[in-house]
Amino acid sequence: MAVNLKQLAEILGLSQTTVSRALNGYPEVNAETRQRVLQAVRETGYRPNRAAQRLATGKAYSIGLVMPIAAGIDSDIHFGEFLAGLAEESVKHDFHFVLNPSAPDDEEATFRRLAASGNVDAVFLAYMRPNDPRIPMLKALSIPFVVHGRSIGGPRDYPFLDVDNTQAFYDATKLLLQLGHHRIALINGPDYLAFSIRRKKGVTRALTEWGLGLDEELVHHSVMADEYGYRSMQHFLERPDPPTAVLCSSTVLALGAVRAINRAGLAIGSDISVIAHDDVLPMLKPENFSVPLTTTRSSLRAAGARIATRLIGGIIGRGDYPEQELWRAELIVRASTGPAPGR
Amino acid sequence: MAVNLKQLAEILGLSQTTVSRALNGYPEVNAETRQRVLQAVRETGYRPNRAAQRLATGKAYSIGLVMPIAAGIDSDIHFGEFLAGLAEESVKHDFHFVLNPSAPDDEEATFRRLAASGNVDAVFLAYMRPNDPRIPMLKALSIPFVVHGRSIGGPRDYPFLDVDNTQAFYDATKLLLQLGHHRIALINGPDYLAFSIRRKKGVTRALTEWGLGLDEELVHHSVMADEYGYRSMQHFLERPDPPTAVLCSSTVLALGAVRAINRAGLAIGSDISVIAHDDVLPMLKPENFSVPLTTTRSSLRAAGARIATRLIGGIIGRGDYPEQELWRAELIVRASTGPAPGR
Repeated sequence: MAVNLKQLAEILGLSQTTVSRALNGYPEVNAETRQRVLQAVRETGYRPNRAAQRLATGKAYSIGLVMPIAAGIDSDIHFGEFLAGLAEESVKHDFHFVLNPSAPDDEEATFRRLAASGNVDAVFLAYMRPNDPRIPMLKALSIPFVVHGRSIGGPRDYPFLDVDNTQAFYDATKLLLQLGHHRIALINGPDYLAFSIRRKKGVTRALTEWGLGLDEELVHHSVMADEYGYRSMQHFLERPDPPTAVLCSSTVLALGAVRAINRAGLAIGSDISVIAHDDVLPMLKPENFSVPLTTTRSSLRAAGARIATRLIGGIIGRGDYPEQELWRAELIVRASTGPAPGR
Repeated sequence: MAVNLKQLAEILGLSQTTVSRALNGYPEVNAETRQRVLQAVRETGYRPNRAAQRLATGKAYSIGLVMPIAAGIDSDIHFGEFLAGLAEESVKHDFHFVLNPSAPDDEEATFRRLAASGNVDAVFLAYMRPNDPRIPMLKALSIPFVVHGRSIGGPRDYPFLDVDNTQAFYDATKLLLQLGHHRIALINGPDYLAFSIRRKKGVTRALTEWGLGLDEELVHHSVMADEYGYRSMQHFLERPDPPTAVLCSSTVLALGAVRAINRAGLAIGSDISVIAHDDVLPMLKPENFSVPLTTTRSSLRAAGARIATRLIGGIIGRGDYPEQELWRAELIVRASTGPAPGR
């Protein structure tokens, strides 16, 4: 069993008050003593004040998450990356997560149970859908929350952090239009998720400004796996009038798309241009593709860390953060985009 | 707030006893009533008996996990996949996770705190190292646990589920030897992890049986990211005596290795053979590579689900599971392996 404050103080030959002050960062304690205390905390596994703090404050020092899952439904690589960001920040404040797995059609009830359990001080929400019922529900439950992403429709006054997906795909499409591309395909995320809807909207907006329309035949929606990127691209290339450029909602989809292009014997950046959204997944970097990929970049991990900062700041009453943040993705031009063929 | 049993019974116009029996699967309750009750549980977010069960049994109905994390340390795609397996099984039993993020050098103390917190009934352990100190610690703390993987050295009587990594890489190497390959390279996981050590041992064993030795110059260790697969392979190909075959500890590493081989203008399956370990990551399937990859296959997600079954079975006292399981990976031959050049 881990030691308590009294035992820790005895081990160190210090008073409980001194140990407690050292742990809470009071300036009266000198650096050397603080180091000794922290070293002893490591060695004994003492959790600074948490048990007592729990009793005194009624806080759980934890953030609630729901993980949609079911047999036969693939895991989502983006969930792990986001979790890494949340964790990176939470570990600094000795916060933990309560993670409730949930069948995808039972998420609302799972959030309700999580909020009512008393095990968490706040919850994190993602995978936003249009008119997402979880937002009014959490508002009614009066539990603090921050949304990653945004719903479409419904209440507007809720805390979120989102990437400006419309702008990102508008910027990417505009680059392609400036390069002379007119037939532009989109390999997008699932069609029921808000980010996918917004990205498609960005593409449409840029095309409309150029006096063009989006050809629905050149839009595919799927989960973010290599396989679907390949299939969609292969399908597009088999058309009598194939696109000269393609936008992919993930570097993972782009991986498959690039393979289909290579197999068709086409050259990326000259025969066909490719732009992908880059969540900055460490296992797959766009600059390392055979032809380095032009991307719209926004780090999922950084978003996770920021949301943890805001949630924890709210719980411990430190810091003053904006309620709503919209991050602009960065357009990074690499070799996968070039002038439309024959231009 | 979620409703309680009494309110749920009122909503349904049934007695509390009937609702309770329906939820606990008693055969006296007919199917139609059970369906009505389950429907109401969904709509109201009622958590069947958990709060009362917690009080009565002292159980938390949760599994503890530690997620190693630090700023600047990449997330691990395999962690998310394993979590999906644990979650897939846990959701069936209304179990949740308590996930403690931890600095990599603080994992032992984090486990100690987690076990002492009373928030979890059992813990899950992974990323095994030789003589891993967490095994004797958890045994001493008397908290149930199951290890994914195995340590090397130290106590042997602890519950685990592991893939037979030595055998898997022995089998893969033997296939290459039978095809006439003598210069075999290994792009392995981190050198301080037990699975990497065992895979290397499997390669060495097969080579030794063939009267050959493993050339240490042809062994690289790194985290499992595309980039490192590329760099390692490029390095091997620049040697005066490049290998004719390469083993990769992950399909993610193989992705980079394949790119380096393509860039060098070599043909996979004839100039150079490739075998990868396949954790069955849904975002990257070996059969979809340009040249389909020969693999040693073992599903991480299935391992997660199995460990959850064993942990939960132990907590609720149902089922009788083996303490130690060693899964054999399946060797699946595809087009990336062929006879050694000039043979």
